[in-house]
Amino acid sequence: MELTILGCYSATPRPKTRPTSQILSIKNHLFLIDCGEGTQVQLRNCKIKFSRIKHVFISHLHGDHYFGLIGLISTFLLLGRETEMHIYGPKGIKEVIMLQLKLGKSWVNFPLTFHELESKDSEIIFEDEKVIVQTIPLKHRIYTNGFLFKEKIGDRKVDIDSVKENHIDISYCQKIKKGFDVINEKGVTILNENITFNPDPPKSYAFCSDTQFYPACIPIIKNTTVLYHESSFLDEHEHLCAATRHSTAKQAAEIAKQANVKKLILGHYSTRYPNIEKFKTEAKQIFKNVELAKDGIVFKI
Amino acid sequence: MELTILGCYSATPRPKTRPTSQILSIKNHLFLIDCGEGTQVQLRNCKIKFSRIKHVFISHLHGDHYFGLIGLISTFLLLGRETEMHIYGPKGIKEVIMLQLKLGKSWVNFPLTFHELESKDSEIIFEDEKVIVQTIPLKHRIYTNGFLFKEKIGDRKVDIDSVKENHIDISYCQKIKKGFDVINEKGVTILNENITFNPDPPKSYAFCSDTQFYPACIPIIKNTTVLYHESSFLDEHEHLCAATRHSTAKQAAEIAKQANVKKLILGHYSTRYPNIEKFKTEAKQIFKNVELAKDGIVFKI
Repeated sequence: MELTILGCYSATPRPKTRPTSQILSIKNHLFLIDCGEGTQVQLRNCKIKFSRIKHVFISHLHGDHYFGLIGLISTFLLLGRETEMHIYGPKGIKEVIMLQLKLGKSWVNFPLTFHELESKDSEIIFEDEKVIVQTIPLKHRIYTNGFLFKEKIGDRKVDIDSVKENHIDISYCQKIKKGFDVINEKGVTILNENITFNPDPPKSYAFCSDTQFYPACIPIIKNTTVLYHESSFLDEHEHLCAATRHSTAKQAAEIAKQANVKKLILGHYSTRYPNIEKFKTEAKQIFKNVELAKDGIVFKI
Repeated sequence: MELTILGCYSATPRPKTRPTSQILSIKNHLFLIDCGEGTQVQLRNCKIKFSRIKHVFISHLHGDHYFGLIGLISTFLLLGRETEMHIYGPKGIKEVIMLQLKLGKSWVNFPLTFHELESKDSEIIFEDEKVIVQTIPLKHRIYTNGFLFKEKIGDRKVDIDSVKENHIDISYCQKIKKGFDVINEKGVTILNENITFNPDPPKSYAFCSDTQFYPACIPIIKNTTVLYHESSFLDEHEHLCAATRHSTAKQAAEIAKQANVKKLILGHYSTRYPNIEKFKTEAKQIFKNVELAKDGIVFKI
């Protein structure tokens, strides 16, 4: 799993800061998470082959999280995209995208499906053989979801040496990976546990932006491998959290601690701070394994 | 008059090219002309105090000409703008902007007025004491207008030496500027023409993007000081003009020649060309005074 931070700053524009957008590479998918203004150019900057993006997850309908989506769709159109595309986001997103396409007389020539969200409970919104995605209801000024991306438990790992020692035909490998016992060339049943190792533990990534301090999300993100949690403010501006419904670095760390995640990534910094290192310093007072999101960097998960 | 090119490339995104947007500084106004994605960041890059923008002119509803507008309005909102703002653009622009504000529960706290255009004839859309703005109907895939910005004839210039020689009280200056004759300290009537010079000839700027070769616009832009005309293609791709309804550099030059403008600025280059100098070379075969728009540069008019 690999997370590319395309942008990680809050709304007010600065020449060198970009609004929220991320690419999660997971089990051969390229998931786009949020899509602030200018995301398509940043995808180019980061040399991401964006025709591979089929699923876009939009947390909420504040502009710094989705104003770049219509530009990206329009570009797909110009480039003659034919591959299907799925957009998961709050109710209303279909209307606004379709209205803009209609006004530009720009009809998409690829299947474009909207999965509009309005539930206040966590729900599974995507699932295939290897990955499952569910919403993380958050608390912001408007209806907002985070997203939890989980790998499913993989196949068992075949112990090739044991397979040979036990005189098993290698054509049984797929069956062995799936956990079955097999009969060897001598007609003896060999137990699966004797010829396989456990699969890697599945990894998970939780994206939580934007939200006020909201411990109700903890049961959903419990034991997550990596949590990205917004930290718009430093402690000195904690008084701004109530009206804006954002979090401080310390509050993000408190969520990480209570959820027992392995690593916390901070982002969505207010552009009032010239130096973001203080976010790390403050969060570390509560939770040890903290990293700072920065535009353009990649985290291996 | 001063024209700042914020962006001058066509739609397909590249890391270093920006879609159409310009700032025209004219008689104490900062007019924003078109507003492609990322315009607000480019305004910052060009150090333009964007709270001074009160009038925005949108040529047509293709994304590379207006997807940045909602982001700019949202930023005005965040910054607590109170000054009025006027948007001139095709019918539909109000619906799309208001829908996005509604979905974000982002109500503007400043007077925001839409002047929706649907006429196929040229019309005056803005006028004050010093400036007049009228539409230039163009021919593109969707309803599109260019805009003609004209200074009005200014006050007459007072010849201070003649005023003194003629024993005229200087409190008459305002009256003299307006063209009136005055009576001097000896009771003699002094003719205005003897104590003033002609005002500077009024300047004008015509913005024509996007359009196919469309000589019907020539009577409107006749004798304009500076014409910006789109040139999406070089001669080798002239065959693409019919389907896309764009122009070549030569066609832009032909319009400039027939309209007898003083200077032609080319722009809206397709991003397929690594070197834009050829646009100038080809246009110069038809019309001599050609300049190339480039992102971030300023033309004195």
